Amino acid sequence: FTAAFHGVMQLDTAKYFQDDHLPTAVTVRDLNGGANFRRARLGVDGKAFGVFDYNILLDVGGSGAEDAGRIQDLWIQYSGLKPWRFRIGAFAPSTGLEDSASTNSSLFAERPAVSDLTRGLAGGDTRIGVAAIGNGERWFFSGAYTGALVSSLNSGAAAFNAPTFDEQQGVDLRVAAVPFQGKDWMTHVGATASVIAQPADLGPAAAVRYAVQLRERPELRVDGTRLIDTGAIDTKGLVAYGLELAVQKSSLLVQGEYFDINLERRNPAAGASDPSFSGWYVEGGLLLTGERRRRNIATAAFDGPTVAKPFDLKKGTWGAWELTARYSTLDLNYAERSATVADRVRGGEQDVWALGVNWFPNSAMAFMLDYYQISVDRLNTAGAQIGQDVQALNLRSQFAF
Amino acid sequence: FTAAFHGVMQLDTAKYFQDDHLPTAVTVRDLNGGANFRRARLGVDGKAFGVFDYNILLDVGGSGAEDAGRIQDLWIQYSGLKPWRFRIGAFAPSTGLEDSASTNSSLFAERPAVSDLTRGLAGGDTRIGVAAIGNGERWFFSGAYTGALVSSLNSGAAAFNAPTFDEQQGVDLRVAAVPFQGKDWMTHVGATASVIAQPADLGPAAAVRYAVQLRERPELRVDGTRLIDTGAIDTKGLVAYGLELAVQKSSLLVQGEYFDINLERRNPAAGASDPSFSGWYVEGGLLLTGERRRRNIATAAFDGPTVAKPFDLKKGTWGAWELTARYSTLDLNYAERSATVADRVRGGEQDVWALGVNWFPNSAMAFMLDYYQISVDRLNTAGAQIGQDVQALNLRSQFAF
Amino acid sequence: FTAAFHGVMQLDTAKYFQDDHLPTAVTVRDLNGGANFRRARLGVDGKAFGVFDYNILLDVGGSGAEDAGRIQDLWIQYSGLKPWRFRIGAFAPSTGLEDSASTNSSLFAERPAVSDLTRGLAGGDTRIGVAAIGNGERWFFSGAYTGALVSSLNSGAAAFNAPTFDEQQGVDLRVAAVPFQGKDWMTHVGATASVIAQPADLGPAAAVRYAVQLRERPELRVDGTRLIDTGAIDTKGLVAYGLELAVQKSSLLVQGEYFDINLERRNPAAGASDPSFSGWYVEGGLLLTGERRRRNIATAAFDGPTVAKPFDLKKGTWGAWELTARYSTLDLNYAERSATVADRVRGGEQDVWALGVNWFPNSAMAFMLDYYQISVDRLNTAGAQIGQDVQALNLRSQFAF
Repeated sequence: FTAAFHGVMQLDTAKYFQDDHLPTAVTVRDLNGGANFRRARLGVDGKAFGVFDYNILLDVGGSGAEDAGRIQDLWIQYSGLKPWRFRIGAFAPSTGLEDSASTNSSLFAERPAVSDLTRGLAGGDTRIGVAAIGNGERWFFSGAYTGALVSSLNSGAAAFNAPTFDEQQGVDLRVAAVPFQGKDWMTHVGATASVIAQPADLGPAAAVRYAVQLRERPELRVDGTRLIDTGAIDTKGLVAYGLELAVQKSSLLVQGEYFDINLERRNPAAGASDPSFSGWYVEGGLLLTGERRRRNIATAAFDGPTVAKPFDLKKGTWGAWELTARYSTLDLNYAERSATVADRVRGGEQDVWALGVNWFPNSAMAFMLDYYQISVDRLNTAGAQIGQDVQALNLRSQFAF
Repeated sequence: FTAAFHGVMQLDTAKYFQDDHLPTAVTVRDLNGGANFRRARLGVDGKAFGVFDYNILLDVGGSGAEDAGRIQDLWIQYSGLKPWRFRIGAFAPSTGLEDSASTNSSLFAERPAVSDLTRGLAGGDTRIGVAAIGNGERWFFSGAYTGALVSSLNSGAAAFNAPTFDEQQGVDLRVAAVPFQGKDWMTHVGATASVIAQPADLGPAAAVRYAVQLRERPELRVDGTRLIDTGAIDTKGLVAYGLELAVQKSSLLVQGEYFDINLERRNPAAGASDPSFSGWYVEGGLLLTGERRRRNIATAAFDGPTVAKPFDLKKGTWGAWELTARYSTLDLNYAERSATVADRVRGGEQDVWALGVNWFPNSAMAFMLDYYQISVDRLNTAGAQIGQDVQALNLRSQFAF
Repeated sequence: FTAAFHGVMQLDTAKYFQDDHLPTAVTVRDLNGGANFRRARLGVDGKAFGVFDYNILLDVGGSGAEDAGRIQDLWIQYSGLKPWRFRIGAFAPSTGLEDSASTNSSLFAERPAVSDLTRGLAGGDTRIGVAAIGNGERWFFSGAYTGALVSSLNSGAAAFNAPTFDEQQGVDLRVAAVPFQGKDWMTHVGATASVIAQPADLGPAAAVRYAVQLRERPELRVDGTRLIDTGAIDTKGLVAYGLELAVQKSSLLVQGEYFDINLERRNPAAGASDPSFSGWYVEGGLLLTGERRRRNIATAAFDGPTVAKPFDLKKGTWGAWELTARYSTLDLNYAERSATVADRVRGGEQDVWALGVNWFPNSAMAFMLDYYQISVDRLNTAGAQIGQDVQALNLRSQFAF
């Protein structure tokens, strides 16, 4: 029996710069700068009886503001049949490259919008499910059958997420491999499928009984507002596909993903076709101090760098420094100008440019200063533009062990 | 000073099978299957300065859905005067055989209905109080003076349980002994009294100022609905008595309890007599793999088995296996067909048959697959039947250390 | 890397004695006795990479009733440049002598009213900010730039504290020194300034957009009601000054503080001048068993005594015993009888006499029995007296490590 304790602090301090002279419909969305704990975690994991693993992790952080304490991870896993692990409990099943990396080792404070959206469909944090996970040095497979999220009380909602009459049923699959590698370089490819086989039944009284709603924040959550949002769509099922690619050469890592989301309407109105959405991103990081991000074969994703010379004023050592850049786009419009109103989905399109500097004083800490150029193009039901351009500056202060 | 860390995961995955063609009054009670964390705990206990014990345990699980984080246990205890312990804080005082056993070692996922009901009167989880507890090899005594429960925010309520003007005052007593025992067998007897000396004062604005409400779920909590419920009764005081009996012979354990609940009305309407309720259960477990459940002399209740051969596919060992059965009944009706309306309490009667298989891969884990046959016979105020028959299947996945 | 675990239990059991024949406006304030966990904490702190410190501490206690789980402390600190520490995260910046002492080593269960009020202005528990802290054997400096509090859900509120449009900006400064000391005596002096440079922007829809509200409980929180309260005042800025003095001679400690609070109104109505408030307290403790409270140079405040002979009935040792006394006054009236209604602030004045006995069975535990004589003199808008006299008796049971 082993036990390792874990704690995480992620504090975001952000300022939003919004355009002046915005239409009234937009200006009510006055984004709130300030400081919030994005994640605040405490927990323990380890091995039990040699062939089992366990993980208990609580979180009291939040998006927009801090939430009430809740389960973040809570699962047990049989790992006695190498190279496979069989897991049950609450965990985020693997649904893409960015999703599979620890949030303590991301290039930016938040995941790219499309990655964050698709991971939440049938996976994402606190998803209850079972999974089979296997990997070798150069291959990875994860298959999960998933249900609902853990009930929680978050600061942006009036109450607990309501219990559903029948919980959502879904599937998450991911395969990844390292097809080519050399002494100081490697390539990573992968593919993901995320399926909502049965949307949650919200009951006969719900306005949209089998609602699926695609929406996303602008890759920064000090303000919790989601700028793009399809609204609730009565849904029979949903399938999302993703492709991932990464190349690492010495201290440079470049990675990108593309996702395609296809939704099947339930009892569609006349003229309403099944909508599809898509998005992609490319991001990269260059470690100026010579370290490199490590590919973790157990997750098929990249961990943060091991800092060669931890910051210490007395020794005159300054930790690791990294430059980062990202372009990300997510299009939640579908037939948004269709003559048939029932066919339209005016969720909006969001493009984000981000540039950043990461300072890692040591392997447990990070300070990430990022600049965001966020552009949202979105129509309301009346056809008026309710998108906007926002710039933002954020400092993420992070400690994780 | 010592410190031992504890974690608990109890995940229930259930499906409810409800009868068709139920009356409308019943069909709105569409029980929700799915997966919920019943208990999710993290804490630490130990000894301080040789003669004191302490316990800090948090819980983020729930009934029906997961609750916000709250205190589960928080107490200190003086144990320097053997064989006595003197405790203050929040804890569940001993109120019967099933109540006194750890929820990590129950025969079924939930306690028998009557046991769960009576423990909650003046005891139950998160009850604040003081207690004196003593035991020898063959005797046990616990006496507790108790107040209110810890305030918490649960998913089934709109808000925190409201602060009361004066908190409930109660007493819990339990004695138990091992009158006869042999080499591979033993008998256990015990008696419990649980008293609400002063119900909580809900204030002059409350519809029922000194309300006591008896109600219970059907021994499964994936859906949080209580199928039997007396409603709030204005109460001067309440006394419940319990008798307990258990017999163990090798790997077979059989135990049962009977409870009688007597309520004294406050300012009763003409013709309203003081109601009384009762319930009992018998349950048993047979360990097929030769282990036996251990009687814990400190709690006078039965712990789970120590698994002889922990599950390991490589070694070809399969842990411990147990067959379980239970019959449980709880009658919350009183004078339900009385000509005097004010005399009637139409809480309903619930009978539950349960059969199960428990698999213990090792001493820290359990998977319990149980089938329930639940029958509720209950009248509404108009005299219509609002009971129902429900079948349910539940898998409890458990890890506790 | 080091990790030390911490747990705290503080249970208050109180009875309030309210005067009879109170005016109707007062009697609705029926204070609720009973038992509540004031603090219930679990966390870990330690050093990382030699030159950094960290602290993660959760709390599920509350005032009036227990709250949902939340962050208590969450910060990291660079301590590689002696004698300075540079801290970022959520913590209570140093804002006076009583504020800077651990709540586990207070002379009474709650801080003096004026100390509790002023620490909450730009500091207090769960304040997010950055700080520079330095000290020698005989000097101490702390300067903090602070923002908002961590979002939390408490039992006294209907919902999470609402996110603000722009968060409060503030500054906390404190200096302290030991000017004179001898073999068994010492003197402590200090000064504090606490500034709200920019009150939180509650948005255009708020009744009072830049509200600052001064209010306080009667140095006991089993009932959460605040007996004095200025109401929300539209505020441009606020500055509070404090002076502190302490004298220790052998087992006797006497300390006092005086605070002056000056508020600048925003867009004042005609005739409304800028209000100012003040308060002070003197308190002392005499350890009958010869121990002494230790001045902690890192906080420039007094810790609890190290118990010489921990309580153990077998050894016939009885721990440490202390007598305590306090007088505290806080005046939240300003021009309360002014002819100009807009000028008046009828917050009320509160005086509290307290006498107590503290028993420390060992260095981790305390039982504090205190008697309070609370007098509130307060006018409502109609000019009627809504103050009252209350007596209260409280037992604090405490365990902290």
